[in-house]
Amino acid sequence: MAAWDKRLAGVRGVLLDISGVLYDGGEDGGAPIPGSVEAVARLKRSRLKVRFCTNESQKSRRELVGLLRRQGFDISEGEVTAPAPAASLILKERSLRPHLLVCDGVRSEFGQIDTTNPNCVVIADAGEDFSYQNMNKAFQVLMELEKPVLISLGKGRYYKETSGLMLDVGAYMKALEYACGIEAEVVGKPSPEYFQLALKEMGVEAHETQR
Amino acid sequence: MAAWDKRLAGVRGVLLDISGVLYDGGEDGGAPIPGSVEAVARLKRSRLKVRFCTNESQKSRRELVGLLRRQGFDISEGEVTAPAPAASLILKERSLRPHLLVCDGVRSEFGQIDTTNPNCVVIADAGEDFSYQNMNKAFQVLMELEKPVLISLGKGRYYKETSGLMLDVGAYMKALEYACGIEAEVVGKPSPEYFQLALKEMGVEAHETQR
Repeated sequence: MAAWDKRLAGVRGVLLDISGVLYDGGEDGGAPIPGSVEAVARLKRSRLKVRFCTNESQKSRRELVGLLRRQGFDISEGEVTAPAPAASLILKERSLRPHLLVCDGVRSEFGQIDTTNPNCVVIADAGEDFSYQNMNKAFQVLMELEKPVLISLGKGRYYKETSGLMLDVGAYMKALEYACGIEAEVVGKPSPEYFQLALKEMGVEAHETQR
Repeated sequence: MAAWDKRLAGVRGVLLDISGVLYDGGEDGGAPIPGSVEAVARLKRSRLKVRFCTNESQKSRRELVGLLRRQGFDISEGEVTAPAPAASLILKERSLRPHLLVCDGVRSEFGQIDTTNPNCVVIADAGEDFSYQNMNKAFQVLMELEKPVLISLGKGRYYKETSGLMLDVGAYMKALEYACGIEAEVVGKPSPEYFQLALKEMGVEAHETQR
């Protein structure tokens, strides 16, 4: 414990990833990674602030938190930083009206956003919704804009499900970048702005945290 | 005509593109571009050799030639250089057994190729067959190989149909390249090897042709 105390000297908060760290996803809701339920409980009993910082963009925070609570985790919606609500803030600030290529599950996070006459495209990990038709529609919306804006919720290459490796949003982001000759704006890890948002929401400075 | 004669001095053959040059595709089979039927007929009456060099990878040569003949073009299967039969030659030479992510229409071009226990992936312009499930399967096959080989029939960003712009195979090639951390081998224009094949099939040298 002495080594830990030294390493944690000056640290006031902890950002925890969720998928692949607290639990592995799967069609049946996935399963907690051994020891993670107790680790979260222990951190919460400590003097440290805890925040969950995820790139999950297939589920709303409500769905994600519900799933984790059923697995025994002590977690609430207000403790989660996720790309969809972060993107929603950016869209409001910049008066952007998105064409959404996202799962139905995460669409509720954009409930307050005007999506008529779109002037940008937002893509998330859409899974089966990454059909040719949906990708082509997003592509056509971008090509019709004078200055195409593509916002990608994360840029992961793939992730692991209990059934195997699955293509993540980053692959589809690259497809649209190449087809349109543009570069996407990434909302999610590893973007520094995203970590800054998580810290701000936790109420601590970067040098006071431990990944 | 004097200017043309000068420009064509020493030229023995002509490579003609098909889509977007002879005709514009569409759900109804598309339509010839005005003047192109007569231009092909005139070239064929001339002293020049003529070959058709396409990146079409949604249709077999038989289908493509049938469609063009119905539109009035003087063209036969043996006059067409297309990526699928070119890839088929490469697969045979290198003893590669492909997992095919291609339209049903073009699958017949790989009829002589062993596709059991795949050791590479071949993608073509698969249109609606670029589902998440099919892309994920191709991705998983690549990730299971010690040295992943991805062969892409062309690398076009998009093409024009009578109904609008459509995402081409290049976008999906980029998605798989990024997800797997690899670089695809492109069979089709603008690959120099592909042009060389077309010239060889026409029986002329590069300096004797006019694009």
